[in-house]
Amino acid sequence: MAWVGILMGSESDWPVMKGTTTVLKDLGIEFEVRVTSAHRTPEETKQYIQDAEARDCGVFICAAGMAAHLAGAVAAHTVRPVIGVPIDSGPLQGFDALLSTVQMPGGIPVATVAVGKAGAKNAAYLAGQMLSLADESLVQKLVDDRAANRAKVAQQNESVQADL
Amino acid sequence: MAWVGILMGSESDWPVMKGTTTVLKDLGIEFEVRVTSAHRTPEETKQYIQDAEARDCGVFICAAGMAAHLAGAVAAHTVRPVIGVPIDSGPLQGFDALLSTVQMPGGIPVATVAVGKAGAKNAAYLAGQMLSLADESLVQKLVDDRAANRAKVAQQNESVQADL
Amino acid sequence: MAWVGILMGSESDWPVMKGTTTVLKDLGIEFEVRVTSAHRTPEETKQYIQDAEARDCGVFICAAGMAAHLAGAVAAHTVRPVIGVPIDSGPLQGFDALLSTVQMPGGIPVATVAVGKAGAKNAAYLAGQMLSLADESLVQKLVDDRAANRAKVAQQNESVQADL
Amino acid sequence: MAWVGILMGSESDWPVMKGTTTVLKDLGIEFEVRVTSAHRTPEETKQYIQDAEARDCGVFICAAGMAAHLAGAVAAHTVRPVIGVPIDSGPLQGFDALLSTVQMPGGIPVATVAVGKAGAKNAAYLAGQMLSLADESLVQKLVDDRAANRAKVAQQNESVQADL
Amino acid sequence: MAWVGILMGSESDWPVMKGTTTVLKDLGIEFEVRVTSAHRTPEETKQYIQDAEARDCGVFICAAGMAAHLAGAVAAHTVRPVIGVPIDSGPLQGFDALLSTVQMPGGIPVATVAVGKAGAKNAAYLAGQMLSLADESLVQKLVDDRAANRAKVAQQNESVQADL
Amino acid sequence: MAWVGILMGSESDWPVMKGTTTVLKDLGIEFEVRVTSAHRTPEETKQYIQDAEARDCGVFICAAGMAAHLAGAVAAHTVRPVIGVPIDSGPLQGFDALLSTVQMPGGIPVATVAVGKAGAKNAAYLAGQMLSLADESLVQKLVDDRAANRAKVAQQNESVQADL
Amino acid sequence: MAWVGILMGSESDWPVMKGTTTVLKDLGIEFEVRVTSAHRTPEETKQYIQDAEARDCGVFICAAGMAAHLAGAVAAHTVRPVIGVPIDSGPLQGFDALLSTVQMPGGIPVATVAVGKAGAKNAAYLAGQMLSLADESLVQKLVDDRAANRAKVAQQNESVQADL
Amino acid sequence: MAWVGILMGSESDWPVMKGTTTVLKDLGIEFEVRVTSAHRTPEETKQYIQDAEARDCGVFICAAGMAAHLAGAVAAHTVRPVIGVPIDSGPLQGFDALLSTVQMPGGIPVATVAVGKAGAKNAAYLAGQMLSLADESLVQKLVDDRAANRAKVAQQNESVQADL
Repeated sequence: MAWVGILMGSESDWPVMKGTTTVLKDLGIEFEVRVTSAHRTPEETKQYIQDAEARDCGVFICAAGMAAHLAGAVAAHTVRPVIGVPIDSGPLQGFDALLSTVQMPGGIPVATVAVGKAGAKNAAYLAGQMLSLADESLVQKLVDDRAANRAKVAQQNESVQADL
Repeated sequence: MAWVGILMGSESDWPVMKGTTTVLKDLGIEFEVRVTSAHRTPEETKQYIQDAEARDCGVFICAAGMAAHLAGAVAAHTVRPVIGVPIDSGPLQGFDALLSTVQMPGGIPVATVAVGKAGAKNAAYLAGQMLSLADESLVQKLVDDRAANRAKVAQQNESVQADL
Repeated sequence: MAWVGILMGSESDWPVMKGTTTVLKDLGIEFEVRVTSAHRTPEETKQYIQDAEARDCGVFICAAGMAAHLAGAVAAHTVRPVIGVPIDSGPLQGFDALLSTVQMPGGIPVATVAVGKAGAKNAAYLAGQMLSLADESLVQKLVDDRAANRAKVAQQNESVQADL
Repeated sequence: MAWVGILMGSESDWPVMKGTTTVLKDLGIEFEVRVTSAHRTPEETKQYIQDAEARDCGVFICAAGMAAHLAGAVAAHTVRPVIGVPIDSGPLQGFDALLSTVQMPGGIPVATVAVGKAGAKNAAYLAGQMLSLADESLVQKLVDDRAANRAKVAQQNESVQADL
Repeated sequence: MAWVGILMGSESDWPVMKGTTTVLKDLGIEFEVRVTSAHRTPEETKQYIQDAEARDCGVFICAAGMAAHLAGAVAAHTVRPVIGVPIDSGPLQGFDALLSTVQMPGGIPVATVAVGKAGAKNAAYLAGQMLSLADESLVQKLVDDRAANRAKVAQQNESVQADL
Repeated sequence: MAWVGILMGSESDWPVMKGTTTVLKDLGIEFEVRVTSAHRTPEETKQYIQDAEARDCGVFICAAGMAAHLAGAVAAHTVRPVIGVPIDSGPLQGFDALLSTVQMPGGIPVATVAVGKAGAKNAAYLAGQMLSLADESLVQKLVDDRAANRAKVAQQNESVQADL
Repeated sequence: MAWVGILMGSESDWPVMKGTTTVLKDLGIEFEVRVTSAHRTPEETKQYIQDAEARDCGVFICAAGMAAHLAGAVAAHTVRPVIGVPIDSGPLQGFDALLSTVQMPGGIPVATVAVGKAGAKNAAYLAGQMLSLADESLVQKLVDDRAANRAKVAQQNESVQADL
Repeated sequence: MAWVGILMGSESDWPVMKGTTTVLKDLGIEFEVRVTSAHRTPEETKQYIQDAEARDCGVFICAAGMAAHLAGAVAAHTVRPVIGVPIDSGPLQGFDALLSTVQMPGGIPVATVAVGKAGAKNAAYLAGQMLSLADESLVQKLVDDRAANRAKVAQQNESVQADL
């Protein structure tokens, strides 16, 4: 099965993006993590993408804040699916990162998920869904995770009933 | 190869979403189009998803405006990747559709693309990228499309030089 | 008298939504609380609505954050009035939940109240106003509550005068 | 059955608010329409509310643009449910009217619907849902309207299929 | 000389609005402070305005948060100048209060100042400027205050130089 | 009686600002109009203010779009009240002009009115209210205008009744 | 004297960016124009920058809409000053392009100007100001342009006086 | 080599703007710092600009919050490049300062950088890039800084690998 390349524009994105790795581990999906910047290390970013693709990386997940160009810059160098996680760093609370990530021009898509923590988790689920197109075993894992999620909602419900 | 299911909340989304079908045809990807609403026909929506999945639909593309719930509602009923296209209908110019589509809670991702026309095209490219994980032949088509795109930029450049 | 069904997308909404239950108790209105998610437990949500309606639930109050689809999803399955409380969770401070709740397309209304705490209280008052259309005794309770509210403003005024 | 009072801050809101009256007629609900302003005719507004209430008005629908205070001003003078329709007049496209209508402080709710045309229709449906709590015959009309709506979606779907 | 009536929608606005009273005292302008609500005590608000006007109140300053209608409601009942201070309470950080205060329809102006603390101070300066049209002695006080302000900037500059 | 100085940053603001002069004429208030820019003619702007003040100008009304600094720049050079009219020129629809005008720091207030046409009218009414503090005859004119406004609302109401 | 390289992400930006070339011609500054995309032609973009730099290009001006990455991508490959012009294409009116251009992370600045036409002109003036640091003759041209601008404001003022 | 004049509207901007001085020191660029306000000390501001220009100041960096006019006011008095740093003070988180700084009308540009800390650093880098047009030695320093930045990204990457 192909693996997932996780790229972050800055080490400060790591606490949020750990949430991505936790879900990928639960789904049994291999991954690599790199700090690499669209602006400060454009060449290294490009080389990593080409190298990762050659080593059968199937999906890229890119997290960045502010004028978040990383996902778009990666998408410009690969035809593998690229998932963008807008990070809420800086004073504008992620509105800047969201628009910079999602509003890609025609031809170079970025699959954008929610700003911050929820998006970090969903990037992993989305990568799993994509990879499951070529690996049926992942489908069952995703279905099981949904069931576990449903059970969690039921638990939360009981917890609230107890508090009433 | 799996096919793509395109769902729209209203017929008024169709002129924009034709852009999705044009790109899918160019990539040689099979698709179906359905008008179905998260709110007005929730049961029909759910049944279509289950039926489409059984018939090997690989990716869903969902377009909706305003409080755009369609992509999220579809994502709740499948573990196939769901791509959301926010439509700029109504007075708020798509800000409502964008936030309603992208800000999904942890566990149920929607791969969101740009608001309106650019997003409609990119939804098709993104679907092609996803399907290419299981069908290597699509990779070459996507790479060729990028080359054509580069040529188009070069043509635009010449056109501007001529105008100078 | 009919009762009120309170639905929340997540247990994390409960501290805010306790404000709804406090007001309902003051007005002597029966209620049930359920944690149920438009995306993670769509079937359970639908079944609860149908069951609640059969047991004479008159009004639904739905609280959710981010891409807040719960109120709209409930409204799609009932013709009882549905009140939506946008919750300010996540980095975008409730702008996402507000637009996702209020911008419903024609045919499926959600009665939206303010983001967060003020909205949680007002959801209960609004439910009381709706139920009072069929139960005259509630009108007097609502009128009395307004009088108490006026008295509270007068007290606040005195407190400020004392501080001058 | 109680009737619905429709108030508009300006005659310029009337083209949008005709959509409310069309739906109310379809549902067989009586209504009155008044142009009255929270700011230019506050006394007339208040007197109309008291008079309407005495004549068994059950629900008020209030439409206004910009700093849209009408719904809140009406809500301050009645414990009947008040539905607010934010109108997208002026350069800010209804963001001002939406926030001015929905962000009511605790104790005085306004049931806010979508900005502009969709909201105008939904105000009527919401009023019908509220009145149906005291008039079971309305429930069937609302259920029938939903069925007609579903049929319209199916027609739209056929129209798109024909266009494919 | 006429005096200034300060109205607040809630006691929670008082800590911010103390800034208004500090400046008014510095300028030697008489004032009264009242907690009164456009929505919870509309009658008391109206009566206070009429009473204050009869006792030669020259300018009203109105502070409110969220769907901040107080300034507009006061302006509807007087032709005295009304200054609106939007308060940043609630999750939307004062964007709601700002738009609800400033976007008044033609005919009923509200002189809006900045959101929160800066606005609270400036409301007092603006009231002083208005009253100075009828009381030349205030002009000199305002000119002196500007000079003091300039001196303060010079002091801040020296403080920064020392820190360099 | 003192008169009103109307300043615009560009001739393109004139069609909107004619609305200010119409109302001032109705109120019998003298005025001058100048095109002068905070950025392109700062010296001329300053000299006009000083000259106008010497000739007993009582209130300044300043209109500008985009990074609308004119009102603030005028306010920095006078202790006369300055009214700011944000103009909706450029792509951002007046959000830029509104924030640039209203968010003045403590000490230098600008009395901000609504964006565009409604604000242009209200700037004149607000100037009239300010000047009425020193000229009782204006009070009656403002009261009469309110009555005329009320009559206009009544006429609009009749027009809508006729259309029903 | 060094020259200015103007880059646009799409030919559709050209009508707006002609405004840049008009001002550069007036200032007697040499320039080249290229259509080149951060996403569709990243390699060509990078090569052009390196080539232009080698040929003594002093300043880059980059125009792009939506998730406007071009200016940032250019800035990543040069230490020459890069000016970004956000273009208001697409439904979000340039808010997306503005935030994507200006919110650059520490270390890689983009000198951002206003959205659209005004920004296109100012990009040229700003480039002229930068180049004047090394070429004193440009200073006088910029000073002369300011004088011409002042004269234009005076003309506009006379035009309005004539219309009064 | 010319030096950089740093102006701040308030001492409260100093903690953020220290970041500018740190980078300038690293680049070996001389600078002066002044607290001076567009609104409270307009004359002093203007005189400082003229004096600084006479003493060969090459670039101005201006930081201000809220209705941030300082950069524009400085730009109106010089043809030297002016860099604007929007500060996120007040409740609106810098959206007001950003729009007030960047949306300058044609003819008077302000080179705007990111809101807050990142912008403060980038203002210094941008000033260095501008000055390097006349001083080749700065080019190497800027190139070296980029290399150091790249090394920092590599270190961050190693730190994350260690944490995996």
